[in-house]
Amino acid sequence: MIHSPICNILGIEKPIFQGGMAWIADARLAAAVSEAGGLGLISSIQAGTEAVRAEIRKARERTEKPFGVNIMLAAPNAAEIADLVVEEGVRIVTTGAGSPAPYIERWLAAGICVIPVVASVAYALKMKELGATALIAEGAESGGHVGELHTMALVPQVVDAVDLPVLAAGGIFDGRSAAAAFMLGACGVQVGTRFLVADECHVHEVYKARLIKASDIGTMVTGKSLGDAVRSLKTPFAKQFARMEADPSVSADEIRAFGTGSLRKAVFDGDLSGGSFLAGEVAGLIRKREPAAAIVNDIMDGAEKVLAQANNLIYGS
Amino acid sequence: MIHSPICNILGIEKPIFQGGMAWIADARLAAAVSEAGGLGLISSIQAGTEAVRAEIRKARERTEKPFGVNIMLAAPNAAEIADLVVEEGVRIVTTGAGSPAPYIERWLAAGICVIPVVASVAYALKMKELGATALIAEGAESGGHVGELHTMALVPQVVDAVDLPVLAAGGIFDGRSAAAAFMLGACGVQVGTRFLVADECHVHEVYKARLIKASDIGTMVTGKSLGDAVRSLKTPFAKQFARMEADPSVSADEIRAFGTGSLRKAVFDGDLSGGSFLAGEVAGLIRKREPAAAIVNDIMDGAEKVLAQANNLIYGS
Repeated sequence: MIHSPICNILGIEKPIFQGGMAWIADARLAAAVSEAGGLGLISSIQAGTEAVRAEIRKARERTEKPFGVNIMLAAPNAAEIADLVVEEGVRIVTTGAGSPAPYIERWLAAGICVIPVVASVAYALKMKELGATALIAEGAESGGHVGELHTMALVPQVVDAVDLPVLAAGGIFDGRSAAAAFMLGACGVQVGTRFLVADECHVHEVYKARLIKASDIGTMVTGKSLGDAVRSLKTPFAKQFARMEADPSVSADEIRAFGTGSLRKAVFDGDLSGGSFLAGEVAGLIRKREPAAAIVNDIMDGAEKVLAQANNLIYGS
Repeated sequence: MIHSPICNILGIEKPIFQGGMAWIADARLAAAVSEAGGLGLISSIQAGTEAVRAEIRKARERTEKPFGVNIMLAAPNAAEIADLVVEEGVRIVTTGAGSPAPYIERWLAAGICVIPVVASVAYALKMKELGATALIAEGAESGGHVGELHTMALVPQVVDAVDLPVLAAGGIFDGRSAAAAFMLGACGVQVGTRFLVADECHVHEVYKARLIKASDIGTMVTGKSLGDAVRSLKTPFAKQFARMEADPSVSADEIRAFGTGSLRKAVFDGDLSGGSFLAGEVAGLIRKREPAAAIVNDIMDGAEKVLAQANNLIYGS
């Protein structure tokens, strides 16, 4: 069984996190991943702060194993959520879309492991300075908000720059990419897109069907012109968004208005013309629905198998 | 020593190709890589067809080991080059920027191994059907012309789709990324950017200095609006190109005119305001000039070391 320092730090069996996807990652999905030995994460983006509290409590009913909360720091209720995780005794927090600087001292004092998502070396260094426990280096292969660098180039640069445990995210789908991440120097992986088709994931059936149908070039990045690049499936909505960005007669405000609420329209309504179906480049590899535990095990068992064969490449050593 | 099927097919010692970079990859660089046990490639983009012939002959004087020619099929003299490689008895051809369909039968009949660069599953399948010997799956981390997918997601999808040896390109810099490529199912790697600072590489000193200075986020992609996406260093030229693309008052023809000859201005003149300094995302990892052989050995020895440690991750197996 694959074991890495992040397992000891967090008290988990398998060095795999489930991405804390906004409006998607709830108690049911997170608990299923944690029960399978990985780290489930609940998103702070639910229907309000109290809804997050309810999900944390539900997750605790479903599993005694560690799970965490992903806090989107750009959200209006970020400060409330920052309090909430302390109140609720959450042990692990991942952060994205903003700096955890206003909260991190308090979290660390409360014994919370703080693991920011980073997309560049400069940001990794800043997080190290703030006292982060570990980092998730996320390449722009990922679904949702993306940076400039991709996993193959990003992870080694972050690993070289900071003396912290680094997990790899973006482009991780199965044992092969997980094993590749370890070769790059990561001590674990975070997987988002593949968990979208987990039986325990509540996204709309249309969302799941589109992921299973997606080809290798089934995703695109929009929002760069707004300084807010996002990877999603190439749906009518995403194509329209891109057309609006390319049209000089459409203002940034109009484009933002078009995008408002689009993630919920995808997740809850399966609305292809109004919804943003966030997904990573690995969408093309998704073939079937399966339980979250089967996904965790396929990735980790697969990685073990691939890593065990690594020596076969080396002759005469 | 790492050995893979591509070594046997091509008669090379080490499963590493040097990218056949336009205006850059000449006899000196290619022969140095081949002498080090990898596969050197001469670009078909030189000062005319006869210049390519001269480079092939020069390479043969410098090494008795296999080397190849990379043919840019969109170039006006592609048909001439297609003849030339047969006339000159070249044994290995890699192709990019277009389909080798008009030439491949003749090449294969002449005993040439044909290895197209692919950026998607559909193109990989097409190349397999044409009779390609192997494929290079190139992720958009690479310098120069880029597709939509990145290495971590692209390589496994190409490996799953075609029953051919697949090399990985894009984001490959050292032993870590080479080992990662093997984990993804590749049987070899192609490296471009890092060879730009090789002692045997003739690019302008300013080009080399900029690569050594580049940070992790030192590259950008331009040309998407023209259907011709290219990754290069973030120079004044590249930023101006991007501004022109974003400006609705600038026509596509004006942008193309601005870009004409820009690669040569970078390679030969080190012209930061007029030159396109093509480079991949790994530019941020480049720290020093060194001989091509040192690069080959660092990557392959590093990969061997990293792969040999893979078992350390697995406890109790």
